[in-house]
Amino acid sequence: MGSLAPFDAGYAALAESLFAHVRSLSRDGRGVTRPSYSDVETGVLAYLERTARSEGIETAYDAAGNLWMTVAGGAPDRPRVVTGSHADSVPKGGNYDGLAGIVAGLVCAIRMRREGATPGRPFATVAFRGEESAWFGKPYLGSAALLGKLTEQDLALKHRDTGYPLMFYMRAAGADPQRLTRGEPLVDPRSIAAYFEVHIEQGPVLEDAGRPVGIVTGIRGNFRHRAIRCAGTAGHSGAVPKRMRQDAVFAVADLLSRVEEAWDEWMQGGHDLVVTSGVLHTNADTHAPSIIPGEVWFSLEARSQSQATLEGFRQAIVAECDSISAARGVQFEFDPPIFSAPATMDRALVDALAGACAARGLSYMRIPSGAGHDAALFANAGVPSAMVFVRNQHGSHNPDEGMRLDDFMLATELLYEAVSAV
Amino acid sequence: MGSLAPFDAGYAALAESLFAHVRSLSRDGRGVTRPSYSDVETGVLAYLERTARSEGIETAYDAAGNLWMTVAGGAPDRPRVVTGSHADSVPKGGNYDGLAGIVAGLVCAIRMRREGATPGRPFATVAFRGEESAWFGKPYLGSAALLGKLTEQDLALKHRDTGYPLMFYMRAAGADPQRLTRGEPLVDPRSIAAYFEVHIEQGPVLEDAGRPVGIVTGIRGNFRHRAIRCAGTAGHSGAVPKRMRQDAVFAVADLLSRVEEAWDEWMQGGHDLVVTSGVLHTNADTHAPSIIPGEVWFSLEARSQSQATLEGFRQAIVAECDSISAARGVQFEFDPPIFSAPATMDRALVDALAGACAARGLSYMRIPSGAGHDAALFANAGVPSAMVFVRNQHGSHNPDEGMRLDDFMLATELLYEAVSAV
Repeated sequence: MGSLAPFDAGYAALAESLFAHVRSLSRDGRGVTRPSYSDVETGVLAYLERTARSEGIETAYDAAGNLWMTVAGGAPDRPRVVTGSHADSVPKGGNYDGLAGIVAGLVCAIRMRREGATPGRPFATVAFRGEESAWFGKPYLGSAALLGKLTEQDLALKHRDTGYPLMFYMRAAGADPQRLTRGEPLVDPRSIAAYFEVHIEQGPVLEDAGRPVGIVTGIRGNFRHRAIRCAGTAGHSGAVPKRMRQDAVFAVADLLSRVEEAWDEWMQGGHDLVVTSGVLHTNADTHAPSIIPGEVWFSLEARSQSQATLEGFRQAIVAECDSISAARGVQFEFDPPIFSAPATMDRALVDALAGACAARGLSYMRIPSGAGHDAALFANAGVPSAMVFVRNQHGSHNPDEGMRLDDFMLATELLYEAVSAV
Repeated sequence: MGSLAPFDAGYAALAESLFAHVRSLSRDGRGVTRPSYSDVETGVLAYLERTARSEGIETAYDAAGNLWMTVAGGAPDRPRVVTGSHADSVPKGGNYDGLAGIVAGLVCAIRMRREGATPGRPFATVAFRGEESAWFGKPYLGSAALLGKLTEQDLALKHRDTGYPLMFYMRAAGADPQRLTRGEPLVDPRSIAAYFEVHIEQGPVLEDAGRPVGIVTGIRGNFRHRAIRCAGTAGHSGAVPKRMRQDAVFAVADLLSRVEEAWDEWMQGGHDLVVTSGVLHTNADTHAPSIIPGEVWFSLEARSQSQATLEGFRQAIVAECDSISAARGVQFEFDPPIFSAPATMDRALVDALAGACAARGLSYMRIPSGAGHDAALFANAGVPSAMVFVRNQHGSHNPDEGMRLDDFMLATELLYEAVSAV
């Protein structure tokens, strides 16, 4: 299709109203909360569905409960082009993380319908469920289910607040969990010509560099433990000499200090790596300032573009735990790790997007994604995939997340051009 | 009075029934929970009051809500002898911590009444309220109030669960909080000839040494922060490079590792010191494994027999916080510290108790108290004070706390002899 007329102001206003309405459906204090496979998420999908249908866009739900919004193509039997992102959010997160990619696709689809611009291939925008690992510990639940990557164990993952299994929430959201764990994708990846995803950058790099958009080169994988337990021995904080203590807090502090030191060393050794312990707590039922802490729970996550780095670093952590256990008389009990593989974006699509930026004089940069995205699963399923990042203000996964509408519309134009060119 | 006939088995059975009944009033799972200035604590005092009155012992409550159970002396105007301990417990603690000292005094008083053995001085057993700092952050509330050491700020201390102030709970328990903060003791310390307290040892030293009782030489003081906040910056765990993070968990892990290292150094330098961070947690409203932790709260407590050590170590901790803040871009926000002064037991009373052990061939040892006790406040108010420790199994401040009745009765005999000799 080549370079096209810019989106007029009406589409920017449309995007703004879509963002505002979804925010109103999921507002939580200053931020938004759209739990994975929750009624809130379902409500967001229902709103998007109504909007799409009112524009003459076909809608359907797959067995994983993801919403498909499709503009029929001139050649209906050709492999389709898919775009999308996720409808859920972290607790008290920002409105654009995930939602931006759905709105970008939907705005493109609405423009096609309004302008009668029938695409060469069927063009589907998917609103995925359950991308955020905050709720069940594992990310990409909706896209993993779509691509046949969900396991029986995944269905048993427990909700962070209620402890009920994912299966329960999937059923309540209208999905068919029994269909999802056969190892068969719901859609043949070969029937997808390309996957595109617009997403806010979840770090400060574009904002710092003064570039409105970025073209993603690859996506970090990760391993994650939601709750490692360190078990020591409780006791009176005044009456037990140091040599007789098995203090779980000092043990975990020691471990985390060693992990951070190893992180520095691995980075100096040229490894791509970030490490986070986002959840940490003593036992609220029994802890007190005057009791030697007998147990501590903590999450531990590492991300890297290299699978070898992830595997090696995880082994290094386990070795440190063994060393600390031997020295301090505490035990570390590991929950099963959850792995997400790193992914590489399609070189030709990346170059095409970069070329489109250059052709319109857009200030962009090529950028690796530190965060995981549904696009990683498509790429690893063999679908040529690419992502456009929009710069964001005040970081991500927090209520202060920001995104300028102008920047978003630039990314939407790039998306429109890219899906039209496949 | 000198050495006396042993308590017969009836008194041991009486003590056992007192322990069992109070346990039944405060059972919580495998342990007991008797919150400071709670209805449970009030119920325990009411039961002890009824028991005392049924034996002809005079009872009264002071303005702090402590229960006094008094056997009139042969010379009513002479300074009285006081014994006692506290009726409250930590959450899910053991039944003997505190209660043993009340039961020991009450059993002595009952024996005096049953045997018509009028003591030379009035003999009072006090059931103190609110000794455990677990509930309002500050220990010795009942005895501090008795001795005029409670402040307006103390009355505003918040309950760990409800956030309501101590004042509220004191009123509900029948105390008169307005009377308590004048700086005037409810009882003139000069009207107390001596204070004795039987208590379980709250560490493993007597049990390890195979001694049923210990004579306490001094009591550690402490400083305590209930909730220091470390404020960093939340962010996406994958998308922010290490150099741009202000991770509150790694900052606190670093601090606690430095504190533990300093603790080792100070002990090697000959300082008496124990350090505990019993409560530690990220923000449960917003934390997730995939979010860089933006805030952490933790308690920090140190105990020593030396006030200079406490003051110096606290300064060392603040200096480490400053250093970490500068290096990591986080802030440490300190809640006001709560101080409890170390105390020395009365040399003559300690020697007399040790002599009584020796005279009856009892295996004992002189032992410093790592835990704080109401006795510390009497000693620091100028009242000659002494404590008898009973060995305990499985530590203290936990449901597995143990104490043998035979050991307890040995301590009760020592108490009886000591209060009769003053």
